[in-house]
Amino acid sequence: MKSKNTMPLPVIPQPVRAEELPGQSNAEVITAGNADPALGTEGYELHITPTSVTLHANAPAGFFYGQQTLRQLRAADGSLPCCRIWDKPRFGWRGLMVDVARHFFTKDEIKHFLDVMAAHKLNVFHWHLVDDQGWRIEIKRYPKLTELAAWRNSIGFGLDPGASRNYRADGRYGGFYTQAEIREIVAHAASQHITIVPEIEMPGHSSAALTAHGELTCSGNPCTTNQDGGIFHGIFCAGKEAPFEFLQNILTEVIELFPGQYIHIGGDEVPKDNWKKCPHCQQRMRNEGLQNEEELQSYFIRRVEKFINAQGRRLIGWDEILEGGLAPNATVMSWRGVAGGIAAATAGHDVVMTPFTHCYFDFYQGKVGQPKAIGGYIPLEKVYEFEPVVPEIPAEKTHHVLGGGANLWTEYMPNYGHLQYMTYPRACALAEVLWSPKESRDFAGFQTRLARHTKLLDALGVKYARTLD
Amino acid sequence: MKSKNTMPLPVIPQPVRAEELPGQSNAEVITAGNADPALGTEGYELHITPTSVTLHANAPAGFFYGQQTLRQLRAADGSLPCCRIWDKPRFGWRGLMVDVARHFFTKDEIKHFLDVMAAHKLNVFHWHLVDDQGWRIEIKRYPKLTELAAWRNSIGFGLDPGASRNYRADGRYGGFYTQAEIREIVAHAASQHITIVPEIEMPGHSSAALTAHGELTCSGNPCTTNQDGGIFHGIFCAGKEAPFEFLQNILTEVIELFPGQYIHIGGDEVPKDNWKKCPHCQQRMRNEGLQNEEELQSYFIRRVEKFINAQGRRLIGWDEILEGGLAPNATVMSWRGVAGGIAAATAGHDVVMTPFTHCYFDFYQGKVGQPKAIGGYIPLEKVYEFEPVVPEIPAEKTHHVLGGGANLWTEYMPNYGHLQYMTYPRACALAEVLWSPKESRDFAGFQTRLARHTKLLDALGVKYARTLD
Repeated sequence: MKSKNTMPLPVIPQPVRAEELPGQSNAEVITAGNADPALGTEGYELHITPTSVTLHANAPAGFFYGQQTLRQLRAADGSLPCCRIWDKPRFGWRGLMVDVARHFFTKDEIKHFLDVMAAHKLNVFHWHLVDDQGWRIEIKRYPKLTELAAWRNSIGFGLDPGASRNYRADGRYGGFYTQAEIREIVAHAASQHITIVPEIEMPGHSSAALTAHGELTCSGNPCTTNQDGGIFHGIFCAGKEAPFEFLQNILTEVIELFPGQYIHIGGDEVPKDNWKKCPHCQQRMRNEGLQNEEELQSYFIRRVEKFINAQGRRLIGWDEILEGGLAPNATVMSWRGVAGGIAAATAGHDVVMTPFTHCYFDFYQGKVGQPKAIGGYIPLEKVYEFEPVVPEIPAEKTHHVLGGGANLWTEYMPNYGHLQYMTYPRACALAEVLWSPKESRDFAGFQTRLARHTKLLDALGVKYARTLD
Repeated sequence: MKSKNTMPLPVIPQPVRAEELPGQSNAEVITAGNADPALGTEGYELHITPTSVTLHANAPAGFFYGQQTLRQLRAADGSLPCCRIWDKPRFGWRGLMVDVARHFFTKDEIKHFLDVMAAHKLNVFHWHLVDDQGWRIEIKRYPKLTELAAWRNSIGFGLDPGASRNYRADGRYGGFYTQAEIREIVAHAASQHITIVPEIEMPGHSSAALTAHGELTCSGNPCTTNQDGGIFHGIFCAGKEAPFEFLQNILTEVIELFPGQYIHIGGDEVPKDNWKKCPHCQQRMRNEGLQNEEELQSYFIRRVEKFINAQGRRLIGWDEILEGGLAPNATVMSWRGVAGGIAAATAGHDVVMTPFTHCYFDFYQGKVGQPKAIGGYIPLEKVYEFEPVVPEIPAEKTHHVLGGGANLWTEYMPNYGHLQYMTYPRACALAEVLWSPKESRDFAGFQTRLARHTKLLDALGVKYARTLD
């Protein structure tokens, strides 16, 4: 069952099966009931006739996605074409990551971002809450994190100060979410059938936390929230006990705020120099029989995983957590290409694919006529070519690929308009890669549908990018 | 008579008088007849009731502009609000200049550009057809101009070659309009009530012409079409007779192609070094009693003006033509601020205001999140503050201010999407400045109308800029 029409139904991501029928529907009422069990919890069946709209699904998520399809059909044409659709997602993890540390986005901006994700049937919001440049989540036990570590002297990154409104009365740049705001966002995400995966970076990319709590570094000297990008030496000491207590106390509050299964602990880009020079770390290595600092990092992550598992949650981290030995139950987010994902899946670990080759939405999306970006080049077509299940993963292990996502590192996205510009329409392509059957992929057809889909983006107030050519 | 509604009618430029009435109109038929003589040839009266749409005007231009208003009303709402409008323009010259030398735009792109201008009631398309980087108009008598001078080795300006498709089979960048294409564009402009003012640069910014006809330089050595920006020494010799014959022959063909009153001869940014060293030029100065090279440039322009006037046309040039003494009937386009316009109007010459402070649309329109531009900063609000009639012009001379325009120098606009991005929405603000009464200017109201007007821009396929904040 394929569309008989040369103009495919304007739905992104495209449904598994869709048949356009003659006529338009005037029906207002949606009747709904149980559906084909093969549709699972997220799938739906939709049948539109001139006088009726019938939506079947097995669970609230399926009804929600059927309604998103209806909304797209209506937005594209201003009317509802008669059709029959049977639809379910290819992957269960369909994600976008937003870095709110390099630049801060308000509660209402995050809620709008979630709304637009949901309209594309994306269901995982990976929230990069802390980094060297700022700490963005209120922790009741450690108020200095938001009093001090949420702020830096300037917007940074060589940007015009006027690019943002997120300044404190004293002129410092930054911001944070109170726990009440986080609960509001989590509830809003749930209403949009989106799970939030909070990320608390450790042991590196921690300059902000270590600005407020300098006693947790190897030397005991505090850091300063960074105003530029890079890999810094703001890392937790792995020899002292205090950093583990501190992080466990933080994770306790984080776990209470976020009901989802996964807690992301970062784990990427940890320079080991501090640890090599630190008597506490070297003592820990001798005590634990660790051969090198990679194994010390592995010790760090395993210990944190033990704590997270004890709370009934699962740990996920960037692919560097493979180095020195992967924690026993960890899920790997593969960003340095797909090699980490292949290694982890082959070893029987779950993986989420976010390779920088296809999924780094901080890279340029056009060769000319684009605002300054961090580098790279990932046009829409490249995103559309993204394939999370690579042939190097043995067939019997491919079920470990939960899905994929794109990452919005915000060094050069100082405001929400810019974040949207870098996200869309590339996230439309990503949504189709992660939802629709691999065999139905067709970039020309996608572009045809996208040309009509922009009406919905306009209606949602999305400042999507247009190629200037 | 002002709008009673808090939401003003979504018309840009806003009408002189507009009253919103209760209800929507379902009327399809437009009846039209003669109007208030005070409306002149471009004004119109529009009366929309639930059952009728009545448009009155004195001339085709007025009917055309009334229809543009109807189109805007329909596009913004999808329905037609009842209203009564009385409208006419403040200035007769409402222009946009496009430089097709630095980068080339195709015939169809120029026609689309004209369509969008007309939708904003802009009526002068100033076509910068030649410059150091390329000669873009077929001249039957001098085929080398398009065989050689229309092409350069690369796209230039440090841009990615992929930014354009305007390459010849041998890989050279450029292009030109045949005379048949120019006639088609001129006819299309006429259908949109737009006059085209062709610009043939002289005596400077002429490296392209002098690539093909090197014998017309002071030294007799040819130039090379430039691949970067700047002020070059590709200037015609003012001492030899051949350059005058050459330019007169070109102007003869230009005048035959373009029926409008004005011929633009450039005249800006002429470095005088060549002339100072040239025995032909020095001999000319002695023969004509010219004190310095500025007077030699004035001699050059006056001589060309004499030829243009003899063909029944008027000469217009950039404000440098004031230096060394203005040609007797010349109109001045004031770009280096408004000083040239003040001097010319005070001396009784007509002027068109295009100051780089408000009207250079090659400048940045936002402080961040913008593609690379040549420099400067002219946001939408700044354009809206543009006032062509400055207080330094004596009241009895203000009628010499014909109007104004904005200039799109295309060094960093390698393709049509980018040209549109730099033009809109700033040209919406320009249109309102040049059409609507000065006393009705209201930037907040303009922004409100613009938010609805973008529906028409979308429908017209305009890649307008959106501020990323």
